[in-house]
Amino acid sequence: MKDLNYDDLDVGYDVPAVPGMDEADIATPALILDLDALERNVKKMGEFAKSAGMRHRSHGKMHKSVDVQKLQQELGGACGVCCQKVSEAEVFARGGITDILVSNQVTQPRKIARLANLPNLGARTICCVDDLDNVSDLSKGAVEAGTQIECLVEIDCGAGRCGVTTTEKVVELARAIDAAEGLKFAGLQAYQGAMQHLDSYDERKAKTQIAIDMVTEAVAALKDEGLTCDIVGGGGTGSYYFESASGVFNELQCGSYAFMDADYGRILDEDGNRIDDGEWENALFILTSVMSHAKADKAIVDAGLKAQSVDSGLPTIYGRDDVEYVKCSDEHGVVMDPEGVLKINDKLRLVPGHCDPTCNVHDWYVGVRGGKVETLWPVSARGKAY
Amino acid sequence: MKDLNYDDLDVGYDVPAVPGMDEADIATPALILDLDALERNVKKMGEFAKSAGMRHRSHGKMHKSVDVQKLQQELGGACGVCCQKVSEAEVFARGGITDILVSNQVTQPRKIARLANLPNLGARTICCVDDLDNVSDLSKGAVEAGTQIECLVEIDCGAGRCGVTTTEKVVELARAIDAAEGLKFAGLQAYQGAMQHLDSYDERKAKTQIAIDMVTEAVAALKDEGLTCDIVGGGGTGSYYFESASGVFNELQCGSYAFMDADYGRILDEDGNRIDDGEWENALFILTSVMSHAKADKAIVDAGLKAQSVDSGLPTIYGRDDVEYVKCSDEHGVVMDPEGVLKINDKLRLVPGHCDPTCNVHDWYVGVRGGKVETLWPVSARGKAY
Repeated sequence: MKDLNYDDLDVGYDVPAVPGMDEADIATPALILDLDALERNVKKMGEFAKSAGMRHRSHGKMHKSVDVQKLQQELGGACGVCCQKVSEAEVFARGGITDILVSNQVTQPRKIARLANLPNLGARTICCVDDLDNVSDLSKGAVEAGTQIECLVEIDCGAGRCGVTTTEKVVELARAIDAAEGLKFAGLQAYQGAMQHLDSYDERKAKTQIAIDMVTEAVAALKDEGLTCDIVGGGGTGSYYFESASGVFNELQCGSYAFMDADYGRILDEDGNRIDDGEWENALFILTSVMSHAKADKAIVDAGLKAQSVDSGLPTIYGRDDVEYVKCSDEHGVVMDPEGVLKINDKLRLVPGHCDPTCNVHDWYVGVRGGKVETLWPVSARGKAY
Repeated sequence: MKDLNYDDLDVGYDVPAVPGMDEADIATPALILDLDALERNVKKMGEFAKSAGMRHRSHGKMHKSVDVQKLQQELGGACGVCCQKVSEAEVFARGGITDILVSNQVTQPRKIARLANLPNLGARTICCVDDLDNVSDLSKGAVEAGTQIECLVEIDCGAGRCGVTTTEKVVELARAIDAAEGLKFAGLQAYQGAMQHLDSYDERKAKTQIAIDMVTEAVAALKDEGLTCDIVGGGGTGSYYFESASGVFNELQCGSYAFMDADYGRILDEDGNRIDDGEWENALFILTSVMSHAKADKAIVDAGLKAQSVDSGLPTIYGRDDVEYVKCSDEHGVVMDPEGVLKINDKLRLVPGHCDPTCNVHDWYVGVRGGKVETLWPVSARGKAY
């Protein structure tokens, strides 16, 4: 945020920190990014994608940040962004991102009109489809706006959410898109969200193979119809190497690799090692402070349910095995401190259970390097859910 | 927001709706407030408190809204606000609320300085204390700001978070506050957060009695020291009638009663009825839309983990027993629809599992009455966690 005048801001009210400040002075709870770790993760994924001959369309639903996305494109070679909501797409388009996939269905009339306006903001605009009537609605929206929407047919390859489940349906939708004014058939969306967090590498491989088989069959059937897939997209932090080796996918959609979280950290690689122990580094933390220690063996910290999402479990405390975060209420976390080593105002780095919905409750990323605050990045699309 | 020019706003990007719009046209997911139900809840609690001879300091940590707080004061006779963070207190003070309790510890130097400045914004300022060093720090802050901070000694009466656990410690802290320049001893904070959600009325009664006994003993011991408690505060939506009948508490701190949620709704009153079946009405909903129905028995809706907190369970679907919200991911909810009654773009009202952290992910309350949008209220202190 080069245009932000930090002199006008109240630390703790407007922003949790300002550049130049010691990490120890950040107002907590705050999201901090270890910029060195983040840059290494981003670079590593970029190098992997390049060596595998894949495009990487980094998932902006995770970080909701124009600044992080630009880092992924500039340092990691990402080809563009995925996101899940039209309002997120608008933030990325207004922030200068020019290749945007809403990897989701857009069905409400007002949202279709807004999606169809995105090319007017300078962005290539792609969305997913799993319903024939929706094809007509999107076509009308694009024609009215005088723009083009590219459409991927979404295959439900195991996540159990949106998407069709048969090749017949894929072909039917692709033909409808191809025939519709204002639309362009652009390929397939096949993200297996449900298996990304399975601990076992072999289980994830087996589930991804089902997806690969479905997609291979669909691509072949489309080819028989004369329909080419510019994009065959999918893959996440727990599976990207499988899609990359498939010979049929050409775009990865990894998000969490850049920040990591406790739930992803636990999954195992091919050699049985946790993926946060070598493959990816924890770059995202919730910085929290001890605010009460009235009981000898228990510290109360200032990061509770409003500083994170606990849907995938409680946070872990980074770099410490002498204290443990065991409970959470709206504004408090209970940290067991059996030896009584913590004092009021001591700070801890928490690794959130689930990065995506945790980032979504914060307004700012505080970028730190070498114990100093280097930058502040807004969580630009925070709250953009509609 | 009388000063908001709705003509300048993009529905779906800046705001989920504008006044005058049909409820069916609200961009989803969005938080909606049934204004009739909200007003009835607020009025009812006000009448209860008045008849019980209690003050009600409504808990703003739940709604984080200056507008809701003003309704609670004007229609419900609330004497002021509780909140949990200095940054929330600043929002309420700047919004014109003049009696503010931060029902929590304030320990970091910068936060103490900001707390001590609140009286300069026109607000009576009260906070909680459970540590002797913190008394000195607060005193220094008040002296530096040239203001007065009132302090409540916090008793941990069962929540297991902040607060001291013996009368001896209560008296020690109260004497230190009384002797400290810039501070005023104002009484006791004794909120038993842990039992509010127990289903059984008798279990809640028994747990509250422990709190009442601790507080009664402490008030008597303080009286022996010549220290009077202006405020003896506590009580929540699951217990306010116990504190009100105690003869020792004089301020209630209920929050959730105004909106209700699925977790509170399940608890039972004295007669074994759910409290959302007569005692309080559901006034808060997440309005969500069906966005995919590619599987015959399953609808996918647009409210997932970023539109709510699921720490206390999944949302329920209001007024429907033919469909059930069974699963949640970042941007999707899975609704079982065995009869296939739902269609794409149909809307459902979800009752969130836990209102407080759910409100904290939204920017706006859409106030509806009779099927029309009547008003928009900002979630003024959303994200004010530090």
